[in-house]
Parts: sequence; C-alpha cells; structure tokens
Amino acid sequence: MFDKVEAAYERIKDIVNHTPVMTSTTLNDQLNCECFFKCENFQKIGAFKFRGAVNTLLQLTEEEKERGVITHSSGNHAQALSLAAKIVGVKAVIVMPENAPKVKVTATKGYGAEIVVCGSKPGDREEAVKPLMKKHGYTLVHPSDDLRIIQGAGTSAYELIKEVGELDYVFAPVGGGGFLSGTALATKGLLPNAKMIAVEPKNADDAYRSFKEGKIIPSINPNTIADGLRTQLGPNTFKIVMEYVDDIITVTEEEIVNAMQFQWERMKLVVEPSGSVSLAGVLSKQYDLDGKRVGIMISGGNIDLTDFFTTLKNSLS
Amino acid sequence: MFDKVEAAYERIKDIVNHTPVMTSTTLNDQLNCECFFKCENFQKIGAFKFRGAVNTLLQLTEEEKERGVITHSSGNHAQALSLAAKIVGVKAVIVMPENAPKVKVTATKGYGAEIVVCGSKPGDREEAVKPLMKKHGYTLVHPSDDLRIIQGAGTSAYELIKEVGELDYVFAPVGGGGFLSGTALATKGLLPNAKMIAVEPKNADDAYRSFKEGKIIPSINPNTIADGLRTQLGPNTFKIVMEYVDDIITVTEEEIVNAMQFQWERMKLVVEPSGSVSLAGVLSKQYDLDGKRVGIMISGGNIDLTDFFTTLKNSLS
Repeated sequence: MFDKVEAAYERIKDIVNHTPVMTSTTLNDQLNCECFFKCENFQKIGAFKFRGAVNTLLQLTEEEKERGVITHSSGNHAQALSLAAKIVGVKAVIVMPENAPKVKVTATKGYGAEIVVCGSKPGDREEAVKPLMKKHGYTLVHPSDDLRIIQGAGTSAYELIKEVGELDYVFAPVGGGGFLSGTALATKGLLPNAKMIAVEPKNADDAYRSFKEGKIIPSINPNTIADGLRTQLGPNTFKIVMEYVDDIITVTEEEIVNAMQFQWERMKLVVEPSGSVSLAGVLSKQYDLDGKRVGIMISGGNIDLTDFFTTLKNSLS
Repeated sequence: MFDKVEAAYERIKDIVNHTPVMTSTTLNDQLNCECFFKCENFQKIGAFKFRGAVNTLLQLTEEEKERGVITHSSGNHAQALSLAAKIVGVKAVIVMPENAPKVKVTATKGYGAEIVVCGSKPGDREEAVKPLMKKHGYTLVHPSDDLRIIQGAGTSAYELIKEVGELDYVFAPVGGGGFLSGTALATKGLLPNAKMIAVEPKNADDAYRSFKEGKIIPSINPNTIADGLRTQLGPNTFKIVMEYVDDIITVTEEEIVNAMQFQWERMKLVVEPSGSVSLAGVLSKQYDLDGKRVGIMISGGNIDLTDFFTTLKNSLS
C-alpha cells in the first residue's frame, strides 16, 4: 500500500505545509543517538490531521463533492476537515458535542464548516450524523479508520525520511491508529529494515492490548492527558498495525508531561500531550538507542493556553 | 561595517544553528502582507546571544584565550558565553546577582562556566567584576555594546535575508541594542531600501527617547514583562542605531502578551516576551504593511515554565 502514500504525497504536497524537521543537541548528547523530530505541530490547523483530510476530499467524486461531507469530532479532525473543505471547495458539516471546548468550536467554525451541536453521551454523535447523511447525502469522513486518511497521514513520515534518509527506528503515538498506520506504511515502504515502534499512554492502552492479543480491544474510560489518543483502533488501522508495526510500548502520564516539558523548555516547541507521547517512549529507554538514528513523530500542538495567558495578562502592571 | 557581519557569518556558521524561518498563513491573511519570522528561539541556548558570544571568543588572542573571559549577566548572555566558552575552549566566569532565578544559574553552570555570586544592588555586579579582572587578567565580554557581539548578532538577519530575499521592512526588538544594531547592519548592507524598524516596550522606552533626542537616555526602573529589554543603549549601539535604524516605535505590555499568545497558540512557537516585541510592533499597525514583505526577528524563547508544568503535573490523575 506504500504506493498509495506516495500518490497521496504527490496529490497534497502543494496544499499542506512541508513541516520542518528539528533536532536537539542536548537530547542527542543525553541519549548518544541522533533524533529527528517531524513537527506536525507546524502543520496547517496545528496537527497532522490536515494531511488526511485533504487527501480524502481530493478523491471524492464530483457528485460527492457537490453534496458535501460530514464528521463528528471535537478535536483536531474537526478543524482539519473544516479547513480542507474550504480549500477544496466542498461543504463540511461537523457534529460536535455540547460540552466541546469553546475554543475548538470557534476554530472549527472559523475555517468555514457548519457546526451541528449534539448531546455528550456515548453514541449521541453517531445518532446525530445518521439522519443528516440520509437527508443531505453527505459523505462521512472518519477521523482515522479510512484508507485515504491513513495514506494522507503517512505523507508526514514520507517527507521525514525523504529529508533525513536512513533511520534505525521511528517512534509514533497511537490512538485511533491513523497516524501510526500511515507512518508505518511510509517507514516500511522506504526503509524496510527500520523498526516501527508505537507509543501509547498506559492509561489508554487498548492498542497495546489489541496488538498483544491479536484482536481489537475497545478503549473503555481512558483517563489520559493525551486527549487525542483516547480513541481505539478500527478494522483498517488494526490490520495495518498488525502487519507493519514492530512493537507497541506504553508510557505513564508523568513520562508524557516530562517529554512535553523537554520539548517546550529545551526545544521551544509547543506540542500537545498526545504529540509528546512518542518522545516519552524514546526517553523511557525500553529500546536501546545507543548510536542509532531515530525518527520521532510529533502529531500536533493544539493545547488550550487560555488560562496561561489570562494569568499572564492579569499579572501585568 | 557590513563586511564585518559577513566575516562574522563565515567565522561562526559551522558552530551556530542556522535557525529556521517560519511563516503564518493566518497572519499573512489578516494583515495582507508576507511575514517571515527569523526564529532565534531555536538558536543554541535558546537565544541569538550565542552568535555574538562565539564571534567574540573566536577573535581573542591566544593570550586572552589562555586567561579566560568574564561577564556579568543573569540572562541569556550568561548562558551564551558559558556555552561558547566551552566550545571554543576558554575559561568563562559569570558574575550573577544573588537573586538571579535558580533555573538560569543552573543552566549557566551546566554549560561549564564558573559562577561568582554578587549582591543585587545597582553597581554590585560591576564592583564584583573589577577585582577579578585585575587579579586573573580576564577579558570582559559586554552583553551588547561590543562590535564583535553586534556583528555576531547581525548574522541572524544576514541568514534571514540570504534565505528569503527582498524585504520591505525588518522589525527587531531593542533593549541594549546589540540585536538591533547587528540586524540593522545586515539589513542595510544587503537591502539598502528596506526600512529598519525597532520596537521597544513603552514601559522601558529609553531607546525610543534616545533616538528622538539624539543622545543616550538612561533606562531608569523599567517595568516591563520583556525582561531582556530592560537594559539601555551604549556608545557603540547608539551610534549604529542613529545611523542605520529608520524608526523606533513602542508597544504596551498587553500588546506584547497578545503577540506572544499568537506565536504560542497559532504558530506553536515558545517565544519569550522580549522576543514577541517585534511582532507586537507589526500588529500595532503603526506602519502600513499592506502588500509588503516583512522580516520579524524573534530574539529568543527562554521563559521560566516551571510553574506551568508543576501545575500540570499536580493535575495528573
């Protein structure tokens, strides 16, 4: 399926940001290895999700484009689909729960999508989507378990490897598995000998358990600061993960925040907790990286800083 | 003096980070101009100061190198000189006031310099430096008013312009004037028609008043969140500013924090308040930038995030 990642890259490369690769001398010295961070926090809308959304919308039929698309999300996928739809010229409807953070609703609306508010109980979102699809003929764009989304997501690791060359390891976070699946396809396609390691919060370890048991284990009441990783694998992502991922390891909440603190303080990167999980995996030393070349995927940088800046403004003289 | 900036670039280019240039579609759309951010927050030690320190130390005589260097600083210059001295292989002594933030003392010591603690009253630092210079023959490296420091600082704008080409405006923050003077030399040397605009906190407007009155006005009790800009111009920086800078404008504390919030939230860049002052100047719309190409110098990203991460860790379940 690697050729589809390559095709996705050619399809979207003039629309998405070619995100920078960053390094840290401090980290390299500390671990005695060479780490290359692929920074999707610098992607449009602040996360890798924009890649898959563009890749999907560009492949709709003319008829589908005319009818528009729909999804349910309160996170990065909502903003990604909203902006991608504006750029491609397609109507987008986003179903968001009534308790979604106002800053995310505003951002999503700001990119041009129509927002439909639904209840916040499990199943409410799906229930709200169905009648709208039936009535208007909208195409559903799933946040992760869709091959076009996965292949689009894979263009990030594709860019990374084309830029830095040989790698011994690639670390990526796993939640719904879209980013991981795409990263794995690109990595194994370009570097068959590189090890693909997924990292998951211990407090939301459904992918870890699914991988070990060989069947999809649902994510029940995940309790992690990494809000983007609370979802579970789907049939498509599970299949790719089982085939292309070498291992899934878990990290604690404290390890996630420590990794995030390193990225903010030492690397000057605003990374969201979900995006710091891959570095947390590297720092957990479950793999011996001595002398190795390591790719570290940063999925995004969308974190609510309202409180931080309100406090700062209140402290002004 | 532009040739000296070029020479500095050749001298230090393999030691300093070639920092990335970042852009923001949101900002460009909002202002209808093209902005190019030169990101010295990604420089070694997290600020442009490393450039001048390396440029200075590499020009010492063998005898001066053997005796070592000294400076007084509680900020970025201390860390810059400490790391530069380690790399060049020179002993560095940093005089720091007893009330300097512990995180900065630790960082400076971490790079290898010897720390000498002094009192925190005005003049205490200078008093502590003198006898050490006399006794050990250390060479004093001033944080800003030294031509080698200025020329080294200028290599940042030099890189920016070499990378992005023609610019109509360049905005830079001003405190002691080292970064501004270097930026002005590089800008006017490469782009004689570009306007060089300095931006200063209204609450520390000594450079603004010095520029308007044609003589150095001391900075007395500056009260600004932009801690790197509380210092004042010296004879060298004042002369360069008068000759090469087109205007100095001022911004409020709230404008500084708003610019910083934009850089963190929308651009995912950790920028310190002093480093956001240049964007604050752009956003203040004192200049009509419609259709223009604008360089925006980010001086650094060293801000104490201990409280932020302590709160985050305490909130973990």
